[in-house]
Amino acid sequence: MHDQQPLGGSAAALPVLAVVGVGLIGGSFAAALRQAGAVSRVLGAGRNRKSLHQALELGLIDAEASLTEVAEQADIILLSVPVGATEAVLETLRPGLRPGALITDVGSTKVNVVQAARAALGDRVAQFVPGHPIAGAETTGPASATPQLYTGRTVILTPLDENSAQDRLRITRLWEVCGARVLVMEPGMHDTVLASVSHLPHFLSSVYMWQVASAGNSDLRMELAGSGFRDFTRIAAGSPEMWRDIFLANRDAVLSELAEVRKALDQAEQALLAGDTQQLHDFLERAALARRFWGSRSGLK
Amino acid sequence: MHDQQPLGGSAAALPVLAVVGVGLIGGSFAAALRQAGAVSRVLGAGRNRKSLHQALELGLIDAEASLTEVAEQADIILLSVPVGATEAVLETLRPGLRPGALITDVGSTKVNVVQAARAALGDRVAQFVPGHPIAGAETTGPASATPQLYTGRTVILTPLDENSAQDRLRITRLWEVCGARVLVMEPGMHDTVLASVSHLPHFLSSVYMWQVASAGNSDLRMELAGSGFRDFTRIAAGSPEMWRDIFLANRDAVLSELAEVRKALDQAEQALLAGDTQQLHDFLERAALARRFWGSRSGLK
Repeated sequence: MHDQQPLGGSAAALPVLAVVGVGLIGGSFAAALRQAGAVSRVLGAGRNRKSLHQALELGLIDAEASLTEVAEQADIILLSVPVGATEAVLETLRPGLRPGALITDVGSTKVNVVQAARAALGDRVAQFVPGHPIAGAETTGPASATPQLYTGRTVILTPLDENSAQDRLRITRLWEVCGARVLVMEPGMHDTVLASVSHLPHFLSSVYMWQVASAGNSDLRMELAGSGFRDFTRIAAGSPEMWRDIFLANRDAVLSELAEVRKALDQAEQALLAGDTQQLHDFLERAALARRFWGSRSGLK
Repeated sequence: MHDQQPLGGSAAALPVLAVVGVGLIGGSFAAALRQAGAVSRVLGAGRNRKSLHQALELGLIDAEASLTEVAEQADIILLSVPVGATEAVLETLRPGLRPGALITDVGSTKVNVVQAARAALGDRVAQFVPGHPIAGAETTGPASATPQLYTGRTVILTPLDENSAQDRLRITRLWEVCGARVLVMEPGMHDTVLASVSHLPHFLSSVYMWQVASAGNSDLRMELAGSGFRDFTRIAAGSPEMWRDIFLANRDAVLSELAEVRKALDQAEQALLAGDTQQLHDFLERAALARRFWGSRSGLK
């Protein structure tokens, strides 16, 4: 059956995978493909020496490699680096990049990653298929990597016009082998939707947490905070560096979605100010029903 | 030892407890006091016939009673009713209220409950000691009641000037028997702090959820929502009726705290608009450190 061919396509040998940035995300990708027997050899690259050593010890990668070695040896290259580092990494990979090799990434913003790829790769940009797995965990680093991380999760690809249908399919198949479902969309739509459902919650949760922590009687406030506070602020504990970079990378979409949330906030505040019982009830009910419906379907309840 | 005396004080008999509104909160109070052997008999009253029958079957109460019977028979009366119903219930209890009886409540706002108590009880207001246990669960109803609900939790009392030291102590001891820690504060301070750490998170979470659900492509948004969205919006699934009443009951404090959150939001938005990397990082770091510290101490991680 065609579907049972090696993932490298018509070539007999399984492809060599390189992961640049071997943490939870990159390490889990390598672990899933290795478990499925879909890669012959895994190279690990990146600036974090400790993570690389750990990934080697854990058997997530077979060898450490420089970016130059990655370009020369790998058939598939996964970039799992901060989106701000994408352009520099691609520039280093470009000169030695094998003609049939494909690069994909896991960056949480896509418009700026596509811009970076065009700037860095020029006429070889067709070898880059942008992606973003909607997966993560409360832990980080190679020790948290697991072949199951992507099982049942969604991966968004935002392919370029330059990508061939065959190359899009190759990347799609790799994620499917990891157990994920692949959705294709435009980079701009990706960034808007992610601004709405991922970046805004983090921004609002952090702003709120900052305000409570800055209040004169913050100790008393936090002493009386309960389980609602716990859930609402959990994401505010995330990495300040990572989220600063995400907000800056997706600034236009975040500001635009924030403006929409502000409009809703204005309406709800007016209803409360006016003591408009019916309007208050209606917006709370709409929110509650939507959240309950989502919870019953998302598998993330 | 003095501490080992029956909770009714110098009287030899254990007191009769009446719970008006036998759901999770009232039922758990009864269950905890009964388990501790601190009450002789428990009466249940309220408008929800089904809950009363269930409470009787579960053994949370010994008998159903009218409010008139409660007034005539109970030594301790716990009101676990919507705060908007407090005045009417107290008015009904007042004529037959036994001279030594004490009433307390569990309402999540206190300024308006104190006003209601003064209006309803008049010169007998000294028999009302306002309270608010900071406890709850994702379930409701008498079937969810458990003697452990208050173990390690905080109960706020906002006593009136009219309450005797002895009566404050009686209510304090009852909550301590339930395993709770009692804090005393002014009603206004209670309402401000609760607006900040309980009502605002719910308001913001619901406004955000409403905005996402109202967007043109809400299906796509919710399909791509992950674990951050899940945590941030969990409280938005709560009862619209209950939260509408809480927001209206604590309107001034909620609006005032919302204005403070808006100031913080303005600052964070300006930092993002200006691409001010340092300021963005600083507010995110302050939020993350405060949240991590809270998580490590709250026992609610």
